[in-house]
Amino acid sequence: MGDENGGVGDGEVVDVYPLNRYYFGSKEAIADKDDSLADRIQRLKSNYEANGLRTCVEGVLLVELLGHPHVLLLQVKNSFFRLPGGRLRPGESVTEGLKRKLSNKLSPIESSMNDNWQIGECIGMWWRSSFDTLPYPYLPHNGRNPKQECTKLFLVRLPISRKFCVPKHMKLLAVPLFQVHDNCQTYGPVISGIPHMLSKFSLNIIQG
Amino acid sequence: MGDENGGVGDGEVVDVYPLNRYYFGSKEAIADKDDSLADRIQRLKSNYEANGLRTCVEGVLLVELLGHPHVLLLQVKNSFFRLPGGRLRPGESVTEGLKRKLSNKLSPIESSMNDNWQIGECIGMWWRSSFDTLPYPYLPHNGRNPKQECTKLFLVRLPISRKFCVPKHMKLLAVPLFQVHDNCQTYGPVISGIPHMLSKFSLNIIQG
Repeated sequence: MGDENGGVGDGEVVDVYPLNRYYFGSKEAIADKDDSLADRIQRLKSNYEANGLRTCVEGVLLVELLGHPHVLLLQVKNSFFRLPGGRLRPGESVTEGLKRKLSNKLSPIESSMNDNWQIGECIGMWWRSSFDTLPYPYLPHNGRNPKQECTKLFLVRLPISRKFCVPKHMKLLAVPLFQVHDNCQTYGPVISGIPHMLSKFSLNIIQG
Repeated sequence: MGDENGGVGDGEVVDVYPLNRYYFGSKEAIADKDDSLADRIQRLKSNYEANGLRTCVEGVLLVELLGHPHVLLLQVKNSFFRLPGGRLRPGESVTEGLKRKLSNKLSPIESSMNDNWQIGECIGMWWRSSFDTLPYPYLPHNGRNPKQECTKLFLVRLPISRKFCVPKHMKLLAVPLFQVHDNCQTYGPVISGIPHMLSKFSLNIIQG
C-alpha cells in the first residue's frame, strides 16, 4: 500500500472522524468492586491464586478535533484515566470480551451486546509481574518473575457517527495524542505510550 | 493465531536467536558527511529546500542474551546511539533502501548488496517538523508546521546465524529492551520507544 518512494504511505490507513459526528449521553453507574486500592490489589491477588494470569483487553478509539487525532479516555470519579475495556471471562475470546466491555462502558443500554464494534489490530501488550507495580511493554525480565497480568490494546475502528452512553460516575474525554504522549505522570505508562503504539498507522484525519 | 483465551497468543510470533550464534567483525570506516552538528543541520536544511521531505528507514534487529530480547544498536565514536539505516535515495523503495543501508552498515564487504535481509513490518513512523527539534510519533500538530523528516522503523527478521561487519568508527552493541525502555536521555526518543513499538509481537526467545 501507499507510496513506495517513502511518502506518508506504508502504514495502514485508519480513518479518523470528527468528534462532532458523535453523540454523548449517560447511563446508570456501574457498582465499584472495591472500596480502596488496597482492596483491589487484594482481590486481584486472590483471583490470581485461583485462576492464574489475568488478561485484560482495552480499546483505543480515535476522533478528530482541531485537525489532530484524539483518543477517547474514561475519567473515573474526576480522578484517574483509563481506556474502555476490562478483564476477560474464563474461556472468552479477546474479541468477544472487548465487545462486551465496550458495550458495557460506552453503549446505550438499549443496544444489544454485540453492538457492531469493529475490533482491529492488537497494537500492544503490557505485562505486570505484580499487581502493585507498573506494567511494562515486554515480558518480565526473567522466568522467575511470575506473569500476573497481561493487558492487550486493540485499535477500534469507529463508524462515521454513533451514540455513546457512559456510566454516570465516569466522564468520556477526547484527549489529543500530543497531550498523552510521554505524559506518564498524568495518564500512566500504557495510555502515555499510545502514540508510539499507533505510530505505524497512517491516520486519515477527516476534519469536522 | 494463538490462544483465544488470552494467553501469550494474538501477537505475531517473532523468533529471537541467541547472540552467540552471530559473528562480528569490522570493516573500513564510512566517511562522515559533516564535521559538526551545525554542519549537519545546515546540510539537511539545504537538502529539504531542494528535495522536500527527507525519508529515512531504520531496522530493528533482535537477539537473545540471558533470556531477554536485546536490540542491536550502533554506537558512533563512543558517543551517541543509532539504529542501522539511513536516508532513502529519490525513487528508492523503503525495502530496497533499508536493504542497501543494512548491508552498508552491517554486512561483510564481500556480500552482494541484496544480502537476503528479511525486512518485516513497519513498526512505527516518527516525524520532525524541524531538523533541530526532536521527532514525534505522530504528524506535526497542525498543517502550518512543515513535515521535514519522516523516519520509518521496520522489524528485521534475523536468520539463526550470520556474520556482521561494522565500520571501524562504530560499535555494534546488543542492548536489552528493559535498558532502552523509557530511557530517552541516553538513547533518544525513537530508540527508547522501541519496546512500545514491539509490544504487539510475541517474542519467541530461543536461549543460547
